Amino acid sequence: MENLNAEIITIGNEILSGRTVNTNASYIARYLTFLGYYVKRIIVVEDSLEEISSAFKESISRGIDLIISTGGLGPTYDDMTIEGLSISLGRELEVNMEALEMIREKYRKLNVELTNERIKMAKMPKGAIAIRNDVGTAPGVLVREGKSVIISLPGVPKEMEDMLPKALEIVMNLFPEKKPRYKYMESSFLLRNVMESSLAPLIKEFMKKYKEVYIKSHPRSKELDKPEIEVQISLRGEQDLNEKMRKIIEEIKKEIKRHFAGAEISDNMN
Amino acid sequence: MENLNAEIITIGNEILSGRTVNTNASYIARYLTFLGYYVKRIIVVEDSLEEISSAFKESISRGIDLIISTGGLGPTYDDMTIEGLSISLGRELEVNMEALEMIREKYRKLNVELTNERIKMAKMPKGAIAIRNDVGTAPGVLVREGKSVIISLPGVPKEMEDMLPKALEIVMNLFPEKKPRYKYMESSFLLRNVMESSLAPLIKEFMKKYKEVYIKSHPRSKELDKPEIEVQISLRGEQDLNEKMRKIIEEIKKEIKRHFAGAEISDNMN
Repeated sequence: MENLNAEIITIGNEILSGRTVNTNASYIARYLTFLGYYVKRIIVVEDSLEEISSAFKESISRGIDLIISTGGLGPTYDDMTIEGLSISLGRELEVNMEALEMIREKYRKLNVELTNERIKMAKMPKGAIAIRNDVGTAPGVLVREGKSVIISLPGVPKEMEDMLPKALEIVMNLFPEKKPRYKYMESSFLLRNVMESSLAPLIKEFMKKYKEVYIKSHPRSKELDKPEIEVQISLRGEQDLNEKMRKIIEEIKKEIKRHFAGAEISDNMN
Repeated sequence: MENLNAEIITIGNEILSGRTVNTNASYIARYLTFLGYYVKRIIVVEDSLEEISSAFKESISRGIDLIISTGGLGPTYDDMTIEGLSISLGRELEVNMEALEMIREKYRKLNVELTNERIKMAKMPKGAIAIRNDVGTAPGVLVREGKSVIISLPGVPKEMEDMLPKALEIVMNLFPEKKPRYKYMESSFLLRNVMESSLAPLIKEFMKKYKEVYIKSHPRSKELDKPEIEVQISLRGEQDLNEKMRKIIEEIKKEIKRHFAGAEISDNMN
C-alpha cells in the first residue's frame, strides 16, 4: 500500500544522556500515525552542527515526505537546529521578517531590547515560513526541499504540542499532495495462558490471509510462567476501518480459542 | 577529549506508531553515559529486514565502539533483528549451541517441544556469543565487527535491564579496550526570574573558559512570563569530578547573581 511517510528528528544532548525520555517523539509519532502518515524512523542526535545537518540530509535523501524536528530553536549558543538545517539544504540563513516581527512583539511587551541572542531566533533558511509560537518565544520553521516538507519545532513539550497542528495545517494548505489518503486504526486484546511462541504460527497465517492487517504480539510477562500477551491489530485503509476491525478481531479470537483450550481472552487491558 | 562512543538502535513498530514511549533507549543511554560512554545517536526503525540491516550497517560504518539494540528477538515472524544483523555483517545465521541449550532448558521444564519458532531464537550470526536471559526466553547476542562491539537485547524492559550489565561485563572481559577511561558527572540547579536569552551570553563565556564543562539551560516554563530555567552542568574527566563540579557550580552561581539582581537560585529541583 502506497503511503506518505514521515521521520522525526529529536535534537538534544539531554535525550542522549538519558536525562530526558523522548516523549516528544512519541507524541508526534502518535499524532502523525493517526493522521495517516507512516512513521519510518525516529533519530536522536546531539547539539552539534555536523550531527544535525547530517540527520536532515539523510532523511531528505531517503525521500521522506514529512520530516519533523524538535529541539534546538532557542536563544542559546547550543540551539543550532536552524543553522544545521540551512547547512543540510545548502541555503543561507537570513532574518525572516515575519519571525522577527513575532519575536519583537513578544519582547516589546516586556520592555526588553532585541539582543543578538533574540534576533538569532528569527534567522531561517531562505524561503522558509515562520510558524507562530503562542506559548513560548522561538518561532517554528517550515521549509520545502525536493520531495520533503521539513518542520522544525521547539523542544519544550507545551510549545511543540501547541504548534504541531498549526504547522500541519500550513502543510495541508500549501502542499495538498502531502495530505495522507489512508486512515489508521488499531485495537488490542489481552491473551492469557498461551505462549508467544505457540501463538506465532497462527498470527503468521493470519497476516498471509489479510495483507492490509498488521498483527503484533507484545509479551507483558515472561514467556514461560503464566504467559500474558497483548495482541495488537492495526489497519490502514481508505474507508470502513471500524467494520473491518470488528470482523478481524472476531475471527482471530475464534481461531485462538479453537487452537488453545486454556486461552483466556479479555478486552480489558489492565 | 577522546572518548568511547555508543549508539542505541530500537527496533519496533510500536515505538514508531507512538504506542510505546522509548524508555528502553533512555535507560540504556543513562546507563552507558554514567559508565563513561558518549552516546551519539538513538535510532528507531521498524520491524523490517531492510530497515534493521541498514541501521546496523550505518552505525558500524560510523565507527561506533558500542552498538546496543533492543527488540525483535522473540519467536514471532516479525522478530527479525538477528536476521537483519546477520545481513548487515554479511555473515550467515547458524544455530548457536549455547543459545540452543539455554532455550532447551527453559522449555524442558514446561514439557513443551522445541518448535521451529523456538529454535529460531537460537539462530545467531557466525562468531556470536549468546547472552543468558534469566527473566525471559530469547538469549541476547554479542558480536564484534571491525571497530564495533554489537549487543542485541530483547525489548521487554525487565529482560533488557537484567541482561544489560551481564552483556557489558562480557564486553569488558573480552574487549578491555572498550572500557571507558572517562567518568561522567552531572548536576543541576534551578534559576528563576532570568530569561534564557539573557543567560545565554554568560553561559557561552563560561564554556569558552572551561573546555571540559558542558552547560545547558532547560527552560521549564515559557521564556517570557516568570521564567524558570534548569541549569545543567555536565563534566567528563578521569578523576576528581566531585571537587571540580563543586567549584564550577559555585562560580556560575556567583556570576549569575552578579549579572542579574533579581535572580533566584535553588538546589531543590521541584
